[in-house]
Amino acid sequence: MPLVPLPDLMLEPLVRNALLEDLGRAGDVTTGAMIATHLRWPGALVARQPGVVAGLDLARLAFRMMDPAITFDVEIPDGNFAKLGSTIARVHGPARGILSAERTALNYLCHLSGIATATHALVEAVKPHKARICCTRKTTPGLRMIEKYAVRAGGGANHRFGLDDAVLIKDNHISSAGSLHAAVRHAREAVGHLMKIELEVDTLAQVAEAVSLPIDAIMFDNMDPVTIKKAVDLVAGRFITEASGRISVDTVSAVAATGVDVISVGWITHSAPILDIGLDAAK
Amino acid sequence: MPLVPLPDLMLEPLVRNALLEDLGRAGDVTTGAMIATHLRWPGALVARQPGVVAGLDLARLAFRMMDPAITFDVEIPDGNFAKLGSTIARVHGPARGILSAERTALNYLCHLSGIATATHALVEAVKPHKARICCTRKTTPGLRMIEKYAVRAGGGANHRFGLDDAVLIKDNHISSAGSLHAAVRHAREAVGHLMKIELEVDTLAQVAEAVSLPIDAIMFDNMDPVTIKKAVDLVAGRFITEASGRISVDTVSAVAATGVDVISVGWITHSAPILDIGLDAAK
Amino acid sequence: MPLVPLPDLMLEPLVRNALLEDLGRAGDVTTGAMIATHLRWPGALVARQPGVVAGLDLARLAFRMMDPAITFDVEIPDGNFAKLGSTIARVHGPARGILSAERTALNYLCHLSGIATATHALVEAVKPHKARICCTRKTTPGLRMIEKYAVRAGGGANHRFGLDDAVLIKDNHISSAGSLHAAVRHAREAVGHLMKIELEVDTLAQVAEAVSLPIDAIMFDNMDPVTIKKAVDLVAGRFITEASGRISVDTVSAVAATGVDVISVGWITHSAPILDIGLDAAK
Amino acid sequence: MPLVPLPDLMLEPLVRNALLEDLGRAGDVTTGAMIATHLRWPGALVARQPGVVAGLDLARLAFRMMDPAITFDVEIPDGNFAKLGSTIARVHGPARGILSAERTALNYLCHLSGIATATHALVEAVKPHKARICCTRKTTPGLRMIEKYAVRAGGGANHRFGLDDAVLIKDNHISSAGSLHAAVRHAREAVGHLMKIELEVDTLAQVAEAVSLPIDAIMFDNMDPVTIKKAVDLVAGRFITEASGRISVDTVSAVAATGVDVISVGWITHSAPILDIGLDAAK
Amino acid sequence: MPLVPLPDLMLEPLVRNALLEDLGRAGDVTTGAMIATHLRWPGALVARQPGVVAGLDLARLAFRMMDPAITFDVEIPDGNFAKLGSTIARVHGPARGILSAERTALNYLCHLSGIATATHALVEAVKPHKARICCTRKTTPGLRMIEKYAVRAGGGANHRFGLDDAVLIKDNHISSAGSLHAAVRHAREAVGHLMKIELEVDTLAQVAEAVSLPIDAIMFDNMDPVTIKKAVDLVAGRFITEASGRISVDTVSAVAATGVDVISVGWITHSAPILDIGLDAAK
Amino acid sequence: MPLVPLPDLMLEPLVRNALLEDLGRAGDVTTGAMIATHLRWPGALVARQPGVVAGLDLARLAFRMMDPAITFDVEIPDGNFAKLGSTIARVHGPARGILSAERTALNYLCHLSGIATATHALVEAVKPHKARICCTRKTTPGLRMIEKYAVRAGGGANHRFGLDDAVLIKDNHISSAGSLHAAVRHAREAVGHLMKIELEVDTLAQVAEAVSLPIDAIMFDNMDPVTIKKAVDLVAGRFITEASGRISVDTVSAVAATGVDVISVGWITHSAPILDIGLDAAK
Repeated sequence: MPLVPLPDLMLEPLVRNALLEDLGRAGDVTTGAMIATHLRWPGALVARQPGVVAGLDLARLAFRMMDPAITFDVEIPDGNFAKLGSTIARVHGPARGILSAERTALNYLCHLSGIATATHALVEAVKPHKARICCTRKTTPGLRMIEKYAVRAGGGANHRFGLDDAVLIKDNHISSAGSLHAAVRHAREAVGHLMKIELEVDTLAQVAEAVSLPIDAIMFDNMDPVTIKKAVDLVAGRFITEASGRISVDTVSAVAATGVDVISVGWITHSAPILDIGLDAAK
Repeated sequence: MPLVPLPDLMLEPLVRNALLEDLGRAGDVTTGAMIATHLRWPGALVARQPGVVAGLDLARLAFRMMDPAITFDVEIPDGNFAKLGSTIARVHGPARGILSAERTALNYLCHLSGIATATHALVEAVKPHKARICCTRKTTPGLRMIEKYAVRAGGGANHRFGLDDAVLIKDNHISSAGSLHAAVRHAREAVGHLMKIELEVDTLAQVAEAVSLPIDAIMFDNMDPVTIKKAVDLVAGRFITEASGRISVDTVSAVAATGVDVISVGWITHSAPILDIGLDAAK
Repeated sequence: MPLVPLPDLMLEPLVRNALLEDLGRAGDVTTGAMIATHLRWPGALVARQPGVVAGLDLARLAFRMMDPAITFDVEIPDGNFAKLGSTIARVHGPARGILSAERTALNYLCHLSGIATATHALVEAVKPHKARICCTRKTTPGLRMIEKYAVRAGGGANHRFGLDDAVLIKDNHISSAGSLHAAVRHAREAVGHLMKIELEVDTLAQVAEAVSLPIDAIMFDNMDPVTIKKAVDLVAGRFITEASGRISVDTVSAVAATGVDVISVGWITHSAPILDIGLDAAK
Repeated sequence: MPLVPLPDLMLEPLVRNALLEDLGRAGDVTTGAMIATHLRWPGALVARQPGVVAGLDLARLAFRMMDPAITFDVEIPDGNFAKLGSTIARVHGPARGILSAERTALNYLCHLSGIATATHALVEAVKPHKARICCTRKTTPGLRMIEKYAVRAGGGANHRFGLDDAVLIKDNHISSAGSLHAAVRHAREAVGHLMKIELEVDTLAQVAEAVSLPIDAIMFDNMDPVTIKKAVDLVAGRFITEASGRISVDTVSAVAATGVDVISVGWITHSAPILDIGLDAAK
Repeated sequence: MPLVPLPDLMLEPLVRNALLEDLGRAGDVTTGAMIATHLRWPGALVARQPGVVAGLDLARLAFRMMDPAITFDVEIPDGNFAKLGSTIARVHGPARGILSAERTALNYLCHLSGIATATHALVEAVKPHKARICCTRKTTPGLRMIEKYAVRAGGGANHRFGLDDAVLIKDNHISSAGSLHAAVRHAREAVGHLMKIELEVDTLAQVAEAVSLPIDAIMFDNMDPVTIKKAVDLVAGRFITEASGRISVDTVSAVAATGVDVISVGWITHSAPILDIGLDAAK
Repeated sequence: MPLVPLPDLMLEPLVRNALLEDLGRAGDVTTGAMIATHLRWPGALVARQPGVVAGLDLARLAFRMMDPAITFDVEIPDGNFAKLGSTIARVHGPARGILSAERTALNYLCHLSGIATATHALVEAVKPHKARICCTRKTTPGLRMIEKYAVRAGGGANHRFGLDDAVLIKDNHISSAGSLHAAVRHAREAVGHLMKIELEVDTLAQVAEAVSLPIDAIMFDNMDPVTIKKAVDLVAGRFITEASGRISVDTVSAVAATGVDVISVGWITHSAPILDIGLDAAK
């Protein structure tokens, strides 16, 4: 599964907003006061922790939108693992622009690489099994597009991108509809032929009821691995199975061993620590 | 230090953007298909972990901008500690709107409460000492304004808000200016009388050189507590002292014991896990 | 399938933009010069042609955003048929605001009702059959969200909302991938478990090849009804079948008679004439 | 009357918005999964129907904003007639970008060329006469600027661009002002010396009353050609005469034969079908 | 000529932008730290200089958008003369919001009232004559809409609002077209029947040449009153005459005495000093 | 103090907005109708008054954003004095673009150069003394960033950029807090270590009370030079002193002679007349 970059067109508004947030109303006063206009620098983005890289296009845009004269050369592309101390990318150009854009570039790169690295740890942990690691809608407001991209960079897959691109029927919907059956029927009538319907269930009894329904996927919410195994067996390949709920690097392998197709994890987007990457003067 | 809310005017563009990101091009298809228009619900935002609350104005706006008929009543205001299981706020109104706004409201509230809670842990840890806990510019791109607010909610203080509201002289600036002295002189000439100048130093030799310079603050970067103590003594109250660099909840007390005025910590904004808060059907 | 409204939050930016486009840099100079401030009017939006209504929320917002004192009462809601001369909605309030917003309100309402009416004609034409009428991505740039809504109002269903919410494999993709099989395999690896994959084919030979592939839907492009019938039989219910290509009100019934599941039609969004609706002084 | 292009600066925000509407939150997943990064293509925009071209600048921007490496060479410029099967423009460059921008480029080009073609049909139909064909404010919300441009491309002229750039006195204004005379006097007092005043009338009696008023133009609303002829004669060249109201390609010649100066037609912007233009692999 | 207000819809984006510019990333820190939440104040906007008021809608929106609980009551509406010390409007409500919005409200009000007052001085100075005072396109970038409104508030009239709503043929255009005659012919062909054409001339010879051309207005650029008088006589009422170029309050009366219809003055928008208005605690 | 330019990234949104404000919905109709596409021109921005230049980056962007083929070469950079008749910059390129951007470029350049020139006059007037000339928050709404830049170009310094980057305690705050002492204490608790606190006082009694408070600066509001002198003596260098209130070019020297550190002047941003700069055909 090769990683597909997002077009610059989708990233530029985000980067512009972030740069302007940092430049405020007077720009980089420190750099303006002290760094000569003509000064040019080579710099290197260096991994201060090992991990999977994500966000280089945003970093590149941060430097280039600050000053188009800055060049940006990638050594370890998004989706690849950077060892401790390795150079991820090189920048070269006017020192003023490099310094002024540095923090914004790193804030994106460290945040997204943190998500990719957390995802990757889960992907590695389930490797003997077929289960794919998947994110949720628990993302940082305004950054969903790039955080879901970082999950892909880490080897994970994406769940719904929003409330509008798939149906996910939860307990509140079921109780309002009156029954699993009625809820699924309402959904099927409401959506077009290219939208999937997933049903979230809490109990094996619900799984047993669900197996005859025209759904595309079923989510087992907060079940232990033993129960998930029974649920997977009940479904018997009729539709895609997903396990969800407080799954960590330590417990994910046991979940994957149940044979479930997808394991969705919220913390890879909402609570992954950054990957520490810094800008060093290049040798 | 009472916590001052940000005006809705500053928050509305953020919340609108986040809601639209989730609604996409078709809105909440699941809720539309299954939840009756007339259905009204009471709901409660409940702490699933103990911690300090921050972001209730954003949560309120998420619900109210989705449907002005939703009421939102705060029980534990921003800046206060919520015990496990306690109700932080109550929502009441059209079920469709509550369900469609739920994820956006929680994404803001959990993220900012996570930052406030992390800040609060550090603030508590340094309590016998005078040191204030302070954030950095290592924030999530586009969210600096509200992340800095969350730091205040957790009892911390704010560092620079951007490149433009204070001078922070780092090694690159010094080397370009030629000397500490020249760098500070350039800064003093460049900025108005309401902008402060802080100098970042790595060694005690630099501290000794700095004590005679017209600066407002000095940052000791990546020094151990013993060295920080010596640096604080050298400065002898001439200007504000700040310690920075990889300081954790475990080590912060030793740093504070040096007598330093400010301890700045990047991870409270870039790597704090969320505080888990959920929306329950209210009793 | 009840029609689900889009939240005002999603519509307001569109309506604001359209009103400002019309107000320009000096506002409504004619109304300002001649209509007294205190004058209040009742008005009625009246169908000058029979058809299906769509876009009343946009019309309401146009009047209300121009002047919050204007009331707007719907008599024939979106998705319902308005007979010639029937009153669709009533406005009442300051005459200045009603006149200044009139054109924008009508431009939305007539355009979307035109799409709903065209869709409805096709839906009626296929009624004895199971086929659903579906739109395409051939929409007016910037208006896709509301044009797809108008299709739903007319009783139709929606195809993809964009390039990002489903895979649609066309001839160019197949030739680049090397084979139908390779193309589908690449797609399956690339997307998450909630994204569907549809394959567009031109010949029965391709259909025969496709039946063993793990796809969710197949589109028969520009086939005549006899060929579509054979294709539907070949697929034999393995996945959803869709017919596409220059299908008119006159020919749609024959296509539906083939047993195809979905009939997609571009002209309902890109070439439907408006439904003529006017604002009359109310009696 | 040479056709004057709109500066890219005016078009870029529209094209950006349309591209992002299509790219959604994940970009073009099909193309990303199947089209090799290095693949380059020549393509041709080909007229699948004969008609007048309009919108090439928007099509060019769609491709170039998606990928600046795409070249775009025009063969039949805006305002010219494309015969069936003729190549309107050629694109060359990265296949991914061409495919991702294709639909947006065509949606603009087909829509605007449809307007230009409809306008052109009317212009041709009135050719022996002096009457100019003119559009109205019945445009697609948000697209007025480019739809009015398309009317110019088709050989037509533009009416008001908004409520602010000319006075158009209608029945409601007259009744509020009390008389034709009072309405015109109010208008004359209200506006600057570079804004024109047009009066809309329904009857010959009104025309007779209007001839002595200081107006710049008069619109005969929904009059038959015989009545229009009388009205034109009454005006006797004192100011510009305009005929309006349900004028089709079949009836326009008779209207023009009355000697009226301007014939305004709403349907060329609100109900013209697209001109079918497709993107073919170039030979 | 009653002054017509601009709808709030047109003003809100400007006011939001200005408030956010002042609130920055932390809001009003002084007020937040010192003013109690519950404190309510009455305040009065008081004229510290005599002059014509303009901009009260913007001031009202500044207070109301900061806090909807603030009431705003106008005593001296836009377009009226405020004597020294008179109360123009009263505000009442939460002190925090009043203080935070004060500067933005006053910046708009003082700037626009300054323009209205300058315009009014010219209008008074030409009173025995028929000449109208008119602004130019020399406005503050981004504020043209409201500065042209302020000119109207001061009793003046508006020239073109932009490059697009009237033709103004200057020396460069004439030299490119080849002759006055050719320039006017090109213009007449290019524009619709509701757009006026004005010709700018420098010499009486040009005026003599212009009198036979189909233009709507003529501008005498930088002519002295004696020459203007001759030019006006040459035109003899064929079209509107305008004088322009470095006309002050002292010289405007002599220009008006020539019988010219319009006198356009750039400095009323680009160089008028503010009218000093302050916010006092109300008695 | 070398003048530091603002990055293009900060200026582009302003310039785009201003150009679009002028281009409206049809672009530059005069230029489009009369100036040949191929015509290229050299032009010169010439000082029609002597003064200090500011805003060349905005002028350059106006031309370049209208047409990237236009070159812009600076002869007298921002912050330098242009003698009457001197060429400030040269433009060369397509005549259409130059003419269409001319007014926007000049509106920025004349406005900001006017501010720089006014500032410079004050700076020159206080030259024998140490006092720095400083602006206020009385700026044109939406233009604060560039007006504060223009003050720097004129040799002045900047006060607060907004309500958020420094504390300025005024009479209202003091009365709400209860005392000078309480107000300052509240402020000190509320803000981080990089934010300064300034106290505004009206009387020598207040100055005497303030000298023992932990503030960074004190503003003497509307005091005469004799009183200011006493106030400066009372402060005795404990913190920065600032004089404010109706200070003109004529009176500023006397104020500076008191030994005050900073003299802040509102009129340099809110009431400075433009510096007249025009675009001439270059020789």
